[in-house]
Amino acid sequence: MSASAPSCGPVKPVSIRFETPLPLQCRRAFGPYDLMVETYGTLNADRSNAILVCHALNASHHVAGYYEENPGDVGWWDNMIGPGKPVDTNRFFVIGVNNLGSCFGSTGPKTLNPATGQPWGADFPLVTVEDWVDAQARLADHFGIERFAAVMGGSLGGMQALQWSIRYPERLAHCVVIASTPKLSAQNIAFNDVARQAIVTDPDFHGGDYYRHGVVPRRGLRLARMIGHITYLSGDDMSEKFGRALRSGEYRFGYGVEFEVESYLRYQGDKFSDYFDANTYLLITKALDYFDPARHTGGDLTAALKPATAQFLMVSFSTDWRFAPERTREMVRSLLQNRRNVTYAEIDAPHGHDAFLLADARYHAAVRAYFERIALEVRA
Amino acid sequence: MSASAPSCGPVKPVSIRFETPLPLQCRRAFGPYDLMVETYGTLNADRSNAILVCHALNASHHVAGYYEENPGDVGWWDNMIGPGKPVDTNRFFVIGVNNLGSCFGSTGPKTLNPATGQPWGADFPLVTVEDWVDAQARLADHFGIERFAAVMGGSLGGMQALQWSIRYPERLAHCVVIASTPKLSAQNIAFNDVARQAIVTDPDFHGGDYYRHGVVPRRGLRLARMIGHITYLSGDDMSEKFGRALRSGEYRFGYGVEFEVESYLRYQGDKFSDYFDANTYLLITKALDYFDPARHTGGDLTAALKPATAQFLMVSFSTDWRFAPERTREMVRSLLQNRRNVTYAEIDAPHGHDAFLLADARYHAAVRAYFERIALEVRA
Repeated sequence: MSASAPSCGPVKPVSIRFETPLPLQCRRAFGPYDLMVETYGTLNADRSNAILVCHALNASHHVAGYYEENPGDVGWWDNMIGPGKPVDTNRFFVIGVNNLGSCFGSTGPKTLNPATGQPWGADFPLVTVEDWVDAQARLADHFGIERFAAVMGGSLGGMQALQWSIRYPERLAHCVVIASTPKLSAQNIAFNDVARQAIVTDPDFHGGDYYRHGVVPRRGLRLARMIGHITYLSGDDMSEKFGRALRSGEYRFGYGVEFEVESYLRYQGDKFSDYFDANTYLLITKALDYFDPARHTGGDLTAALKPATAQFLMVSFSTDWRFAPERTREMVRSLLQNRRNVTYAEIDAPHGHDAFLLADARYHAAVRAYFERIALEVRA
Repeated sequence: MSASAPSCGPVKPVSIRFETPLPLQCRRAFGPYDLMVETYGTLNADRSNAILVCHALNASHHVAGYYEENPGDVGWWDNMIGPGKPVDTNRFFVIGVNNLGSCFGSTGPKTLNPATGQPWGADFPLVTVEDWVDAQARLADHFGIERFAAVMGGSLGGMQALQWSIRYPERLAHCVVIASTPKLSAQNIAFNDVARQAIVTDPDFHGGDYYRHGVVPRRGLRLARMIGHITYLSGDDMSEKFGRALRSGEYRFGYGVEFEVESYLRYQGDKFSDYFDANTYLLITKALDYFDPARHTGGDLTAALKPATAQFLMVSFSTDWRFAPERTREMVRSLLQNRRNVTYAEIDAPHGHDAFLLADARYHAAVRAYFERIALEVRA
């Protein structure tokens, strides 16, 4: 994907400390805390060219570029963000941030609680999309950015962008929401809950305090990822990629890997359980479940979006059955009812929910065109 | 559902022993073995009014009626089968049979292996849809039934009915295939494999020999059922039934039950893990994965169905995303290409895959009309 395009090159994350505790939706205040951040491009003199990229479940601040010590560790949205890419770092200053509660360097459940000298574990608070957005607003203050040219994200990242438009309407000019939804459906929550149950019933979970037992609930995390992964792909895409192909060409009448799709899923689960923190998985899936801006307006999404003044780009993908195009259309309709300026692209792509991470030409062309328009505003 | 309709009344299962070992697809021969059977109605003099009902994943021989000692234990298809019901036991002699490898009285993994005095456990062979059909043919012999008026089933039961039409074409007049598929998709297999991985990685599984450890892999079985259950319901149906309703009316910022859908799923998982055998779950999901009659004809379903001479009723449900209507249409098309007589009903019902077990009026009317036609043939 865009392999020939120049990359942001070697990048270095930085950790930023916030001393003042953050008031959370759960009515606790949490802090001091650290956020891991990467930036790409150069902040212009009037600080008007900043883009905030919000991450989804398993991603991080490492949005683009690679690390000198590990050139294979390329940012998760490197095909989208970089010099000459749809979000062009020759024009924009892009910030990637690892959210509070995640496990890639920002303060989270595996961080030591200074009061006990032990990892936070089960004592780490359940943070929400609103909390993340509040923490990101403080990060903007840190950079002296009063107003983002755009806040953008896919999936859970799109929820954060949408929340920005409601919570800090004056602090973003554009809001880019990709493959997202205004709230999870019962089926979405059900999949998340099975994944969580896989983790919390793993005997190695120890009520969330597995760190001090020197184990990780690897079995549960592996199952959680396998379940999640099925929902990220479209059924047709899985048929296309794996079909009913057998590893050995014939039935073996046993429970080892037989079908290629089994091999793929188990591999994905194994890999994930090697690097992801189980408490973070629990916490982030709850943040997904909780997200529902219309909860405060009696279920009326149009009323919930009334404060938003940003201009919007919304993108959905035809075969995304996790957050189907209809869910994005709900947001578009509500914004139009509020007479907001909305660009909507529904991309016919075979790759299900994962499409937002892939370099589909029409998708990238739509984002590129939109950001070229933003760039003109920034220069004006 | 049809609560006012008369039931088959108190019924009694019987266990039937088969001494001759059954040659299996895995190239083992297995036996002697027992099958648990229930019958409803009366076999007529020329034994031409017999209907075989094949069960799906978690069901049994207890198709209709109830048990005197436990009147609440009503058969799983009691709304379909009984006096005056769509499959009218005043006219037909209906046989329900628990398949080999299941856990409701037929020989299966939890049965004692006479050679060791221990439960079969991991040594129980992986049986297939073909094997079940072969065992059912022997059961027909036992009853002196040369030719069934119909063989019928939903989901995995429909696969068995279809396999009957290919394997013993002269032994059934009608084949009734409901909410089924000619083979699982990669996504179907993926869901099954996650469920199996939940079971086999449960520390209480002990490689399938948990019986002798005095435990059951309850955690894994519970997760397997939760995953399965999500795929049995339609997303819209879940939204309709549960939406985002909260048990306590507000977010609790913890990992207990919060959303009603979580409560429902966990309850289903708990209940299932109380009564179902984990080895049977593994074995039956493999039988599902393996079913693919066109495997022997280079993927050509029309060629695979060439031997079938029965007349067919096929039913699918609009919101069944597990075995979508398109999968049934594939079978219908192949049968029509073979110039077979096929009646096809695509029922617009909200209940997903589970619809085949529910008393939808149009669905039951279609089955009733079809069986009235069969009854005329039987009397002629």
